[in-house]
Amino acid sequence: MTEAPAPQTEGFTLNHSMMRIKEPARSLAFYTGVLGMRVLRRLDFEALGFSLYFLNTPAGTETPPEEAGERTAWTFSQRGLLELTHNWGSEDDPDLQYHDGNTDPQGFGHICIAVPDLDAAVQWFDDNGVEFVKRPEQGRLPDVAFIRDPDGYWIEIVEPARLKQLGDAL
Amino acid sequence: MTEAPAPQTEGFTLNHSMMRIKEPARSLAFYTGVLGMRVLRRLDFEALGFSLYFLNTPAGTETPPEEAGERTAWTFSQRGLLELTHNWGSEDDPDLQYHDGNTDPQGFGHICIAVPDLDAAVQWFDDNGVEFVKRPEQGRLPDVAFIRDPDGYWIEIVEPARLKQLGDAL
Repeated sequence: MTEAPAPQTEGFTLNHSMMRIKEPARSLAFYTGVLGMRVLRRLDFEALGFSLYFLNTPAGTETPPEEAGERTAWTFSQRGLLELTHNWGSEDDPDLQYHDGNTDPQGFGHICIAVPDLDAAVQWFDDNGVEFVKRPEQGRLPDVAFIRDPDGYWIEIVEPARLKQLGDAL
Repeated sequence: MTEAPAPQTEGFTLNHSMMRIKEPARSLAFYTGVLGMRVLRRLDFEALGFSLYFLNTPAGTETPPEEAGERTAWTFSQRGLLELTHNWGSEDDPDLQYHDGNTDPQGFGHICIAVPDLDAAVQWFDDNGVEFVKRPEQGRLPDVAFIRDPDGYWIEIVEPARLKQLGDAL
């Protein structure tokens, strides 16, 4: 990219990606317990009947402000968060199953967690009964794993240092 | 969150979210031109027939390494990127329209860009002919806008300082 971004885009920051979740308790247990993420902010919308949970992996995250409004503004200033949306009552709807985007109709595909040691991470996921879509040794992309979150969304797991040959070399 | 993350999750980093795109040229023009993002890495998978584009907004991004393998490992070590996947030939399939996740079947919802000045950003999007799902003054969430990317995916646009009252106060 030789062209500089337009000055009108200065300060634009990719803040989050949002996925809907059916049951907050099981999702938060998974994202904080198994993936080690922190809930940075929770917002409840009484009149609209939904709650938002903003999470991130802890590396490099500064301590959020305590005061509620400041903490909200701070949350929306961060980079690369995960936002989980809970529409109240979804957990009691026996017909509701959110769509992971990887079967028809396709669109969104996955989120990705980089880990320092892929083998240790796979062991950790196995110890926690996590479902795999693809183990590192399966399929045509070596050293890349995919697990499922409690709603079935795919989460790619990679160890960056093992991906140097990815791309043209395949 | 009073509980510390499990030591097995140390170093886990939320690296990216992936969405499929139909036409790389129009998507890259939009994400780099209108949203000011940079393509940090492109990976082509000849044998599998797809390409990946890793992008981020520039704030705080260090300069990527030049050497291809190092640059790939660096990309997968970053936080909060956007990955756009192009399955070769999708641009020539007249029946293909990716699913934005906000109509049935629901799942993924949107990505979000924080901007320093919401009014200026809206003007910039209007100047570029961007389609709005919701302008800031529409609907029940004031100061929150949603635009569409070329595939129809929703992109939330917020000015963090204007969101301090968001949540319980609504």
